[in-house]
Amino acid sequence: MHTYRLTLSYDGTRYNGWQRQGNTQNTIQEKLETLLSRLLGEEIEVAGSGRTDAGVHASGQVVSFHTTQYHDPAQLLREIRQYLPDDIGAMDLCEASPRFHARLNATGKTYVYRVWNSSVPNVFQRKYQYQVDSKLNIEAMRTAAADLIGTHDFMSFCANKRMKKSTVRTIQSIDITPIGNEIRFTFTGNGFLYHMVRILVGTLLEVGMGTRDMHSMPALLDAKDRSQAGFLTPAQGLCLEAVYYD
Amino acid sequence: MHTYRLTLSYDGTRYNGWQRQGNTQNTIQEKLETLLSRLLGEEIEVAGSGRTDAGVHASGQVVSFHTTQYHDPAQLLREIRQYLPDDIGAMDLCEASPRFHARLNATGKTYVYRVWNSSVPNVFQRKYQYQVDSKLNIEAMRTAAADLIGTHDFMSFCANKRMKKSTVRTIQSIDITPIGNEIRFTFTGNGFLYHMVRILVGTLLEVGMGTRDMHSMPALLDAKDRSQAGFLTPAQGLCLEAVYYD
Repeated sequence: MHTYRLTLSYDGTRYNGWQRQGNTQNTIQEKLETLLSRLLGEEIEVAGSGRTDAGVHASGQVVSFHTTQYHDPAQLLREIRQYLPDDIGAMDLCEASPRFHARLNATGKTYVYRVWNSSVPNVFQRKYQYQVDSKLNIEAMRTAAADLIGTHDFMSFCANKRMKKSTVRTIQSIDITPIGNEIRFTFTGNGFLYHMVRILVGTLLEVGMGTRDMHSMPALLDAKDRSQAGFLTPAQGLCLEAVYYD
Repeated sequence: MHTYRLTLSYDGTRYNGWQRQGNTQNTIQEKLETLLSRLLGEEIEVAGSGRTDAGVHASGQVVSFHTTQYHDPAQLLREIRQYLPDDIGAMDLCEASPRFHARLNATGKTYVYRVWNSSVPNVFQRKYQYQVDSKLNIEAMRTAAADLIGTHDFMSFCANKRMKKSTVRTIQSIDITPIGNEIRFTFTGNGFLYHMVRILVGTLLEVGMGTRDMHSMPALLDAKDRSQAGFLTPAQGLCLEAVYYD
């Protein structure tokens, strides 16, 4: 058995997210498995580092899969590139240790959420940004973000009400960086709950607009109540940028 | 009569170019005229600074139009933004001198052509770049480009065989700038012939790939023969960036 590690980028706009599940059509996982099974002549199942929701992008999704035969990674990478649709890009492929699993071995991830903070439209980035007209107080958002860093129960920021597993996660860093009219929110942590990054951004944006107190994050974490957190920002602004392994 | 000057950006991917002509459906001009006529309650004809071909983008197309009534530019701009499709952006609107005409008064333009010089795909910019795998010699391309600057008969770089008007144009500058894996070709001149920028880029790319002599530009200009110039690069890499007026 041989194990491969594939790094993918994708424009999630026209997909129903990463994961093939039940009747869900048109997922990135399904596209990839169909292609790999055809190219390699055997049924291939891939494991992604985690799901990305419908409309969410990735520049560094990591995927693992097993094959019975050895395939030269450089040659296989060229073939994958040749047949993938133009909104899915194979960035890198290498043989991995037989026990490598993209989800189970992941120790952390970086997500970037991009806000276009202007009333002037940005047609070229419109599918990768969320446009916010209101003036945003960057310093207030950074103050609030600082209280979210560390190990906390993020149940208030989890959309899954029936979450039975632990909702404790560790956020290593939250960077809020204006680049021209774009404001880039970069989250690095050991894992993120369902919709967590998008609810975090919605909550921080409310702080930035002045409709939520910048010192209210500790109380919001304590509340463990989704309804007290901010709005869910649209999927299109979110991108899975990197997945980390030991 | 009142005259307005509107600056537009657009993602040209799904349009048949700028110009409404004959039976051509789905042009940017047509979308804009239909919207303005509806908003202003009178038939509006717009003049663009020049045509952009099917699939070509713009970040600074300039458009002029006349109205019988005065309209507050800030208010009109908001309405235009509200109703334009999300791949056409109204950047700016102001009242202009009654004699202002976006095409007739233009004294120069800047076009940018973006090449993605890597075998690694760039899914997020795929609609705004032309991917070239081959290694490119930047210095050779710059040497060739230097011989194209100035006032020349660019007939060799004009796709229109039945061009009856002068094919003499002045190119003020050609900048070739690598930015990561992207190579940005920036052309500023007093005007450009049909397909001229895309043929210039195709010719320079052949120089960069080593299949065309970097010192052959003077002879190519002298030949006044389209068939001796390089290939026509795809529309998707081209963007009209700015139009200049005195």
